[in-house]
Amino acid sequence: MSEEVETAEAGTGIGRVRLEFTPSGQDVRVPPGVTVFDAASWNGLAIDSTCGGHGTCKKCKIQILEGEVPVSRLDIRAFSPEQLADGWRLACMARANGNLKVDVPPLSTRPKAATVGVGRQVILRPAIQKRYIELTEPTLSDQRTDIERIADALDDLNVNADLAVLRTLPTILRKANFQVTAVISDEDLIAIEPGDTSAANYAVAIDLGTTTVVATLLDLGTGTPVAVKSMLNKQQPFGADVISRISATMMDPEALGIMQNLGLDTLNELIAEVCDEAGIESTSVYETAIAGNATMIHLLLGVDPEPIGVAPFIMAVKEWPEYTAEQIGLAVHPGARTYLFPAFGAYVGGDIVAGVLATGMDRDKRVRLLIDVGTNCEIVLSNGDQILTTAAPAGPAFEAASIACGMRAADGAVEVVQIKDDALHLGVIGDTEPVGLCGSGLVDAVYVLHKSGLLDDSGRFVNDDVAAEIAPNLSKNLITREAGDRIFVLHWADDEPAVFLSQRDVRELQFAKASIATGWRMLLDEVGLKDDDVQQVLLAGSFGSYLSPASAVGIGLVPKMPVVRIVSAGNVAGEGAKMVLLSSTERSGAQTLLNEVEYVELSDRADFQEKFVVELALPS
Amino acid sequence: MSEEVETAEAGTGIGRVRLEFTPSGQDVRVPPGVTVFDAASWNGLAIDSTCGGHGTCKKCKIQILEGEVPVSRLDIRAFSPEQLADGWRLACMARANGNLKVDVPPLSTRPKAATVGVGRQVILRPAIQKRYIELTEPTLSDQRTDIERIADALDDLNVNADLAVLRTLPTILRKANFQVTAVISDEDLIAIEPGDTSAANYAVAIDLGTTTVVATLLDLGTGTPVAVKSMLNKQQPFGADVISRISATMMDPEALGIMQNLGLDTLNELIAEVCDEAGIESTSVYETAIAGNATMIHLLLGVDPEPIGVAPFIMAVKEWPEYTAEQIGLAVHPGARTYLFPAFGAYVGGDIVAGVLATGMDRDKRVRLLIDVGTNCEIVLSNGDQILTTAAPAGPAFEAASIACGMRAADGAVEVVQIKDDALHLGVIGDTEPVGLCGSGLVDAVYVLHKSGLLDDSGRFVNDDVAAEIAPNLSKNLITREAGDRIFVLHWADDEPAVFLSQRDVRELQFAKASIATGWRMLLDEVGLKDDDVQQVLLAGSFGSYLSPASAVGIGLVPKMPVVRIVSAGNVAGEGAKMVLLSSTERSGAQTLLNEVEYVELSDRADFQEKFVVELALPS
Repeated sequence: MSEEVETAEAGTGIGRVRLEFTPSGQDVRVPPGVTVFDAASWNGLAIDSTCGGHGTCKKCKIQILEGEVPVSRLDIRAFSPEQLADGWRLACMARANGNLKVDVPPLSTRPKAATVGVGRQVILRPAIQKRYIELTEPTLSDQRTDIERIADALDDLNVNADLAVLRTLPTILRKANFQVTAVISDEDLIAIEPGDTSAANYAVAIDLGTTTVVATLLDLGTGTPVAVKSMLNKQQPFGADVISRISATMMDPEALGIMQNLGLDTLNELIAEVCDEAGIESTSVYETAIAGNATMIHLLLGVDPEPIGVAPFIMAVKEWPEYTAEQIGLAVHPGARTYLFPAFGAYVGGDIVAGVLATGMDRDKRVRLLIDVGTNCEIVLSNGDQILTTAAPAGPAFEAASIACGMRAADGAVEVVQIKDDALHLGVIGDTEPVGLCGSGLVDAVYVLHKSGLLDDSGRFVNDDVAAEIAPNLSKNLITREAGDRIFVLHWADDEPAVFLSQRDVRELQFAKASIATGWRMLLDEVGLKDDDVQQVLLAGSFGSYLSPASAVGIGLVPKMPVVRIVSAGNVAGEGAKMVLLSSTERSGAQTLLNEVEYVELSDRADFQEKFVVELALPS
Repeated sequence: MSEEVETAEAGTGIGRVRLEFTPSGQDVRVPPGVTVFDAASWNGLAIDSTCGGHGTCKKCKIQILEGEVPVSRLDIRAFSPEQLADGWRLACMARANGNLKVDVPPLSTRPKAATVGVGRQVILRPAIQKRYIELTEPTLSDQRTDIERIADALDDLNVNADLAVLRTLPTILRKANFQVTAVISDEDLIAIEPGDTSAANYAVAIDLGTTTVVATLLDLGTGTPVAVKSMLNKQQPFGADVISRISATMMDPEALGIMQNLGLDTLNELIAEVCDEAGIESTSVYETAIAGNATMIHLLLGVDPEPIGVAPFIMAVKEWPEYTAEQIGLAVHPGARTYLFPAFGAYVGGDIVAGVLATGMDRDKRVRLLIDVGTNCEIVLSNGDQILTTAAPAGPAFEAASIACGMRAADGAVEVVQIKDDALHLGVIGDTEPVGLCGSGLVDAVYVLHKSGLLDDSGRFVNDDVAAEIAPNLSKNLITREAGDRIFVLHWADDEPAVFLSQRDVRELQFAKASIATGWRMLLDEVGLKDDDVQQVLLAGSFGSYLSPASAVGIGLVPKMPVVRIVSAGNVAGEGAKMVLLSSTERSGAQTLLNEVEYVELSDRADFQEKFVVELALPS
């Protein structure tokens, strides 16, 4: 055996073992103890299976050509003694504790796969299984209990049954003449339904944002999204950001309960909407996955979030157990399981864990940054070896909340600002008369005004003489109002400034971008890398989709690099939530990230302030 | 090593390994894989421990003198490398997978033990632990979540926390300055209480009978019962026996829910009463154990019991998971765990499992019968090797419900009937004027009347001539009423028969005793034993306490044997319930019984009817 086995310790997950697959020729390295099925699946190699690797379909037959894999109790049922001696095993039971050479027979079934996340192929293997079973009826010589009868029919699953299932079990079994569909979540029996209902098997992926909540209904049989709906988080009246919401719980003892209910109302309305659109019963939804920041999850569960809001920023919990929909209050099947993404830190929550999963930050050798720009900005740096993360309190500038003419990205918002030949060009959402400035427009405006010379490197508007010289036409838009307040007018209405950028707005943006830039720069320092080592920047979240990459580089929000390497990754939290519903392998991956990703607290670093001040400047 | 190791397979529980303890010289045989701590505890040998074998107190130090025990991760913390090399280990982590010679140092703490069941000594080791912990407060450089902080302080427990605990965790920790008491059930954190509340640690053992319910409050710190209360099961209006209650659910769809609530009301009133008497809060009760027949448990949980009531007599479940008090509706600490005894069969329920545990039927080499006499009679036979059990439908005779002058064992009930020198002597409960006949009086009456010759072997009253000859005085009490109905008057009031035994009453008793005798005789047949092989009969339940052993032998209710070997075992179900609360080792023992005890269904045996007819006769 090679060195690799010597450095790997069986069953410990330490080190790596090597698997060589024939006839594909694929050669993969995985932690010892991983099953051959998982090792293949993680590397995009499909092995026959209809049960998704649960040990029940006995289709994932492989032949071990080199290396040792003990015979499992299921192998004995699946193979003849001769086959066992020839190395035949079930891939889902075969743990690779040493190097192996494995022959994978051609597929007789076509494994379903879905493309989700950022170009990730996920092999369909949900935690939820529906299995139609026809039971033999009890007799005096076969007095197995109802639940034993089901457990035996489900073969090798060690089924624990919810009390709610047991309550109606005798009645349902007998009304349905012992022909029922079992709904299983991992090893828990969450429902018994009369007849064959196996076709109706759904889950809902939820991106629980502070501002916007998105729900996607997934058909677990096909892996396809069948309906998507979004709405504003109904907790909004308690404040736009997490700090306001936490403050509300500190000032009013009722606020936690009210926000918990508002959060549930939001989720339940969305769930009802996606089910309506797909024309299915919400009781056919057997699982939900929720990606949200730590505060959103605490509020949703009714867990006091106060210590998150004040230094030293402590969560009650970062890894949540699985709860039933009934325990939480979600209006799906009462026994449905809820997967709550764990959090890396108080300000780098489950939405970012989902995002790291969806972007495959842990599976790429390149140096990559994932930045979720918002009031609280989360930054993840991966160099193919280590993954670091931190939070940067950017403030509300990007949501344009504290900007003189700021508005949300809605009709009338200036979202693009360009200057060509001393002339201003605006892109306005809805192609209407401009009425305000949204976050991406703000970043564009500061970038182009700095590039034109109307803003100096310190972020100050140049004086009128300089302005008139470098931009004879545009300088007319740079005016001084009462108390020396200087603004740059983006749009006039009746000769009055209608949409403009104030000196104070520029300062707001500088503070926000300095906070973020300090964040990623300190992470880079941590692993000894420079700006130009970064090979890709993924901008997450809705703001990331609107932001002009050139402007982002231009103001120094992201490291300097060709704009093609700055990628808008979209709603990665929602994509991650879908992935963990479609594949329990991916879910294990999400949990593994907790150990792999290091949370770096920057707020107590001695050099933070100094670096921050440097980053305030606009790049010359 | 000896042969025994060769027949034992490590970790499988198959075969036996031998442990020799010094200096006590005790020599015990246990299944492989059992910890040295458990092996000692099961055999009454005390090893130092304050945590009860949970791996946290590190007091159970032993030295392995011969044999191999791998070093556990806890051993590394408890011993120096030299001590480890010398064979020192923690007994609770040391699994005996081969023969061992073990030195047990003298006790530095005195282990608490309680005597419960039938002369059983139980070493106090409850599943519930209360641990007072003083946590360090979080800082920016120690941002562990609240739950991690607690799990770390609890050292090696892998603590899962209930959602209810998490909801208030941040608030309680901070109000209590991070000085709290953790309440742990096995590995679940069920409560966090401010300050040091470790002294208040209680559990309630419940014997949930069809007729009577008994609750015992136990102090888990000392192992002593602090209050006991009983009351009639409030489900009584739905029928006296399980069949009537099951029928009620079949006739009225509301009945199941109503009986569930009545069952809970009964338990909750009793719980309130024992807590009141002890002057404690019911929220200091963290665990309950409930021993009841299968129907009582189904009704209590709201699980449809209908299939138990009709052939082939099927339970929904026989091994229940652990539920919280909140899930079930018990008015103790909402996170308290509920241990529901498993059932051997539809008519040999958890009360009998508890009884087998309490009487140590599985730990005795003698041939013993445990008989719980009642409307439904349960029989357990152990020969030191095999344990068999069956149910015998005795009907209501023993509860005197279908007897002409039958009454419950209350004031005025004739409970003892004797004949000396042709004269009748009655024992009456409360020493009052007799008003009726209870079960034990019925058995006595039939026995003494048969012995006197007034009843023949077939159970028929002899004719008046024969009666006058053999019992000149008593024969006056044997009279014929209208329609040839013959009765024996036990008590006259104003020259009218006030309390009497009718020919029909005798038949009722014959049917009941025949059912029971057929039961134990077929069990004896099953293992090839005869009546006189039986060395002890344990009579369980309240009826068993009142029954005269001589009469029981005399009518053939139990095998013929010296009466000193017929032992009234008392409320063994309640005792078993106490044991599983006091010791999680005993609880494992109760679960093990499920595999060890074989349930024999007699109703479909071809020879049942024939044997039954033979048993109808009274022994000559």
